[in-house]
Amino acid sequence: MSDLTELRDRMRTFTEERDWDQFHDPKSLILALVGEVGELAELFQWLPADTARDRAQEPHLHQRTGEELADVLLYLIRLADVLDIDLAQAALHKLEDSTTRFPPKNFHGQAPEKH
Amino acid sequence: MSDLTELRDRMRTFTEERDWDQFHDPKSLILALVGEVGELAELFQWLPADTARDRAQEPHLHQRTGEELADVLLYLIRLADVLDIDLAQAALHKLEDSTTRFPPKNFHGQAPEKH
Amino acid sequence: MSDLTELRDRMRTFTEERDWDQFHDPKSLILALVGEVGELAELFQWLPADTARDRAQEPHLHQRTGEELADVLLYLIRLADVLDIDLAQAALHKLEDSTTRFPPKNFHGQAPEKH
Amino acid sequence: MSDLTELRDRMRTFTEERDWDQFHDPKSLILALVGEVGELAELFQWLPADTARDRAQEPHLHQRTGEELADVLLYLIRLADVLDIDLAQAALHKLEDSTTRFPPKNFHGQAPEKH
Repeated sequence: MSDLTELRDRMRTFTEERDWDQFHDPKSLILALVGEVGELAELFQWLPADTARDRAQEPHLHQRTGEELADVLLYLIRLADVLDIDLAQAALHKLEDSTTRFPPKNFHGQAPEKH
Repeated sequence: MSDLTELRDRMRTFTEERDWDQFHDPKSLILALVGEVGELAELFQWLPADTARDRAQEPHLHQRTGEELADVLLYLIRLADVLDIDLAQAALHKLEDSTTRFPPKNFHGQAPEKH
Repeated sequence: MSDLTELRDRMRTFTEERDWDQFHDPKSLILALVGEVGELAELFQWLPADTARDRAQEPHLHQRTGEELADVLLYLIRLADVLDIDLAQAALHKLEDSTTRFPPKNFHGQAPEKH
Repeated sequence: MSDLTELRDRMRTFTEERDWDQFHDPKSLILALVGEVGELAELFQWLPADTARDRAQEPHLHQRTGEELADVLLYLIRLADVLDIDLAQAALHKLEDSTTRFPPKNFHGQAPEKH
């Protein structure tokens, strides 16, 4: 079984065992996701941009970052489950779209701008 | 190969083909993740909480939500890759921790509070 | 002197007295803002939508919410200062634009959709 | 009248004229705030950290940044209004707390860490 399917099923069981389905409407889950993204941001906010990647290899920060990334992923998986969205499929489609929209020869070394 | 590993490898190739590694320091990737979470929030912000889940089954919103969830997942996977974090492993650990921290009998129907 | 100007000046002094200007580049300040928005989201994530406003009048949650709103405002003011943006002026302009873009007769009881 | 009070009153009128109060429960307003913070993040995500402040002086980006900061401020003010929170007062209190918690001599040039 795939990673994402396994994690989805485990989250589903975890939720049911605590009768927490009642809290997992989409807006609440998005707010929970925002909370975890905020905790991730706090770990990196004051690190110098050019050394942040190396600093994140220090054991304590590496551990904490893994925990926050995990929290974001778990709420994302739960949200997709509640909304009947196949997350792996959606990600593959999106990546194919981006591959077409941003041809390497036009976007080489050039970040797409968002205005 | 697992979903998350496959998506990680595809994102890595996608990035290298465009020479976008230079943009993918952790702080920039977290900001990109925040941008996608913001787009997800905008899809749901004004929907009534109690019908949001049903409304999200309408084809247009279902499609758009899948795209935004995909974008969040792809940046999350890319961030984990840049930081040498095994996302599936981190999520499994976190879920085990939560299973211990929130025993069903103590937290049945009771959302854990964050102060 | 206006509220926003006074708060801007106080934040400026607070920052200079600690020699924290060096941390206050725009991307770092946006991440700090994201961290505070995340803490705000965590206070409300599991509250039922239809009673959240009343629940937020309970003294402890009212106090905590005020603190998080304050943190968001202070980083926003600091970010505007670093970027030489007159926040009060920008907000008045934006509100005038919205007044024109959303004529009451066309948008009465109708939330503008974001696709 | 102070800036924040004036903006609060104008937002209140703007909302009432469109009968949008019905959408402005706290969780919806926080999601709207998240949406605007996401748009702000997108403007800066790929800019090099060390030149982002200068780049943000270019007229187009300066204008766009002002608009996004304004949107964040307006939703923040609206949220405070709905929750009966005096935003200026809360910010002054928070700044006084931080002044005490972070004595300049202990935190000179030292960003407070969040674990």
